[in-house]
Amino acid sequence: MSSLRESAAVEAPVADAESRLHHDDHDALRLWLRLFACTSLIERSIRTQLRESFAMTLPRFDLMAQLERAPQGLKMSELSRRLMVTGGNVTGLTDQLVSEGLVVRKRVAGDRRAQAVSLTREGRKVFRKMAEAHERWIVALMAGLSPGERDRLYALLGRLKRGVAAMASQESS
Amino acid sequence: MSSLRESAAVEAPVADAESRLHHDDHDALRLWLRLFACTSLIERSIRTQLRESFAMTLPRFDLMAQLERAPQGLKMSELSRRLMVTGGNVTGLTDQLVSEGLVVRKRVAGDRRAQAVSLTREGRKVFRKMAEAHERWIVALMAGLSPGERDRLYALLGRLKRGVAAMASQESS
Repeated sequence: MSSLRESAAVEAPVADAESRLHHDDHDALRLWLRLFACTSLIERSIRTQLRESFAMTLPRFDLMAQLERAPQGLKMSELSRRLMVTGGNVTGLTDQLVSEGLVVRKRVAGDRRAQAVSLTREGRKVFRKMAEAHERWIVALMAGLSPGERDRLYALLGRLKRGVAAMASQESS
Repeated sequence: MSSLRESAAVEAPVADAESRLHHDDHDALRLWLRLFACTSLIERSIRTQLRESFAMTLPRFDLMAQLERAPQGLKMSELSRRLMVTGGNVTGLTDQLVSEGLVVRKRVAGDRRAQAVSLTREGRKVFRKMAEAHERWIVALMAGLSPGERDRLYALLGRLKRGVAAMASQESS
């Protein structure tokens, strides 16, 4: 460690995922860092707008979005799986939404230990409002692309996704 | 809340970001959910491989990647900014890497209170190995696309990114 130079830290002008590229990096790596940067920028904008317009966090919004699609309710285990978070996190998010009257827990018929979670009537109303705003924000964020470009991007990402899913299933087998 | 039905939870076959779409959703929203799903799938695969091959977490890898580009070291505040995480998190990640001998803290010349962080010689060696593997994994994950498709995707994401950045700067002004 004695070989380290004692010099001042340097400030860089740019600061997103793409900023760590070297000139000779493979084009696949450049593509990944750009994909990641786009996703992060959009996600950050959505987080900010959800907080400012609805005092809502993204994980709670995502949880409500899953429930909105499942009018009969979802078991906690299924909700964890769909949100790809641990059971403890889902419990915490659900507790918050229950305390705000947006979500309700109920017993599952025929299973004493399992609980299902659903939106309340109020939760459904609140979610619909947020979802409308969310869609407007996304439309605005994507407005730099023409409809044709959006179609092409959608198709290319579909091919990428199939490739990644095929790779991932190889890994786990 | 009494209007809620007492029914069993329903299990769904699919479970990623795209699975919450309705038929009438706007194409921009579909595109966003697919973009998010692709990023999540790749990120999850990278996390798994970093853990299994190097017992390394993604946030620590990202921190080392930033340091590798800054041989003179980075101030903690600059490191936080580049990684887009809070100071407390950067401190925790840095502590772990220091304890493993991969990273070192040193005083900044001319600023009594500021500290800069750098990779150690060992840290540089370990990072280079991980970065080579990381690039191979990304190349494999992107292999479902031809070189031409990768170019087109890169260009389209560039247009998307510029549009999003323009939107975001409007929001904050």
